[in-house]
Amino acid sequence: MLVTIGEILVEIMATTIGIGFHEAQPLIGPFPSGAPAIFIDQVAKLGVPCGMVGAVGDDDFGRLNIERLAGDGVDVSAISIQPDIATGSAFVRYREDGSRDFVYNILRSANSRIELSAAAERLIASADHLHVMGSTLSIPAVQTITETAVARVKARGGTISFDPNVRKEMLGDASLGDVLRRILAVTDIFMPSGDEIFLFAPADDPAQAAQRLIAGGVAELVLKRGAAGAQVFTVAGCVDGAPFSVNEVDPTGAGDCFGATFVVCRRLGMTADRALAYANAAGARTVTVMGPMEGASTFAELDTLIAERSQRA
Amino acid sequence: MLVTIGEILVEIMATTIGIGFHEAQPLIGPFPSGAPAIFIDQVAKLGVPCGMVGAVGDDDFGRLNIERLAGDGVDVSAISIQPDIATGSAFVRYREDGSRDFVYNILRSANSRIELSAAAERLIASADHLHVMGSTLSIPAVQTITETAVARVKARGGTISFDPNVRKEMLGDASLGDVLRRILAVTDIFMPSGDEIFLFAPADDPAQAAQRLIAGGVAELVLKRGAAGAQVFTVAGCVDGAPFSVNEVDPTGAGDCFGATFVVCRRLGMTADRALAYANAAGARTVTVMGPMEGASTFAELDTLIAERSQRA
Repeated sequence: MLVTIGEILVEIMATTIGIGFHEAQPLIGPFPSGAPAIFIDQVAKLGVPCGMVGAVGDDDFGRLNIERLAGDGVDVSAISIQPDIATGSAFVRYREDGSRDFVYNILRSANSRIELSAAAERLIASADHLHVMGSTLSIPAVQTITETAVARVKARGGTISFDPNVRKEMLGDASLGDVLRRILAVTDIFMPSGDEIFLFAPADDPAQAAQRLIAGGVAELVLKRGAAGAQVFTVAGCVDGAPFSVNEVDPTGAGDCFGATFVVCRRLGMTADRALAYANAAGARTVTVMGPMEGASTFAELDTLIAERSQRA
Repeated sequence: MLVTIGEILVEIMATTIGIGFHEAQPLIGPFPSGAPAIFIDQVAKLGVPCGMVGAVGDDDFGRLNIERLAGDGVDVSAISIQPDIATGSAFVRYREDGSRDFVYNILRSANSRIELSAAAERLIASADHLHVMGSTLSIPAVQTITETAVARVKARGGTISFDPNVRKEMLGDASLGDVLRRILAVTDIFMPSGDEIFLFAPADDPAQAAQRLIAGGVAELVLKRGAAGAQVFTVAGCVDGAPFSVNEVDPTGAGDCFGATFVVCRRLGMTADRALAYANAAGARTVTVMGPMEGASTFAELDTLIAERSQRA
């Protein structure tokens, strides 16, 4: 059983490129979203038993998420429905340069009510792998429950994957920085994106940072490099995964689907090489459709994409 | 100086008719909104000095509202910008039968931080008329500040208008029901919509309810009947205002623009008859455009609409 804890959101996307939300404009949404929710939905689509601890409001946005996750096979028993608070939301608009403007309601949404309920206790007790999303830890209530869950899963021989998914400013919060470092210290699979590899290991280049992190106890480091593909570092060396060339519509969720697929493949006993190919395929499929969770893939869909590439090569 | 207190929102509207928000769909927004904000924007467009006590988040949705209100002439000095909480929001979708589904974030949005700040004290001290929107009083913080403002404005000879704008369920909250009844007791212009006239005066028909309310101290009762027009009841009798026949695009905000226009016209010394004509024209213009505040009118625009009707007649 693979478990994660964290925020559930709806995402509303501007359909035009431009700066922010200063005037009424065409939008599309609500899409089910939230980095941990995207991750766990991708795990479920790969047919692996999984569940999520979270909280939504008693509104259509909450129901939309629960229905999607449950429909795809996620155990939603530990997602609570909070009666008097809105489901989290994120409005996003892309600028010309590919950067994004957001308007969030997360910290004071239903996500602030994530708690170690009896249902969460049961789900965590059944987990042999826990995925930690660093961004989630900016919700104060989630810090404690995550550290509790990490300790319990590790105590019974389970494993931890950790996607920092944090902005540098979050490390300025001393208490949050400490939590992230404590989680890193017990992480088996560490999955930073780009310069996130330097967050906990200042170094001249990624390979040097990876060496330091592996020396510090990380068994496997997966460096996500977006459209440039990914690399896996272990004590044995480095494996490169070539990216898939696809028509990018919306990159949101690609890192989460990539990460989920890599973790699942490794847990199914695949080589790092093969896991990377599946993970890159999953990331590639995600960016071809609008909506963060809309491009989550089954193994059959990933096999098709991989076969297409082989034929072209 | 005409002042109101209450919620500021963005509104996001579904562009298709149907049931709720169970899947991603085309939307349009964010539109500046919130019943008291629509009211005060309409007051400003009629050229009358006015201001609002409110609170928004430090996000594009807050800036959008402040820019609109300030641009139209509202004193926004008492609208605070809260650093770590989202601007209120409301998603709305119309059903086939004209009813609406909503997803709100109001009670735990920046609106929960409305307070009697120094700026609010100054604005209220300058008010000779206060408009109270009943819906706003479901925000606990607003109950106290509204009652304080009502008492101060009345104490120096000012007047109160009161639009209940409440659902029956809100009266089930005993404490809120008491607040609403205390405000009604000092109201000069009471402006219920449809069956709201019976909220505080159970009766067999609207005229009987109006009589009871006037006997209880209300100087003037304006009954809003949507597309059926409006009626003004006073101790002198009843005046009917014929509706304008327009192509309805979006009724949101019509009652607020109607009410603002009626109050402004009466304060400018117009007869109830003339005030009703302007108010009906303002309500009619509002429904012809999408967005709650987009159809707020100047006197010149209302004069044009009224002249067009006279020519057709």
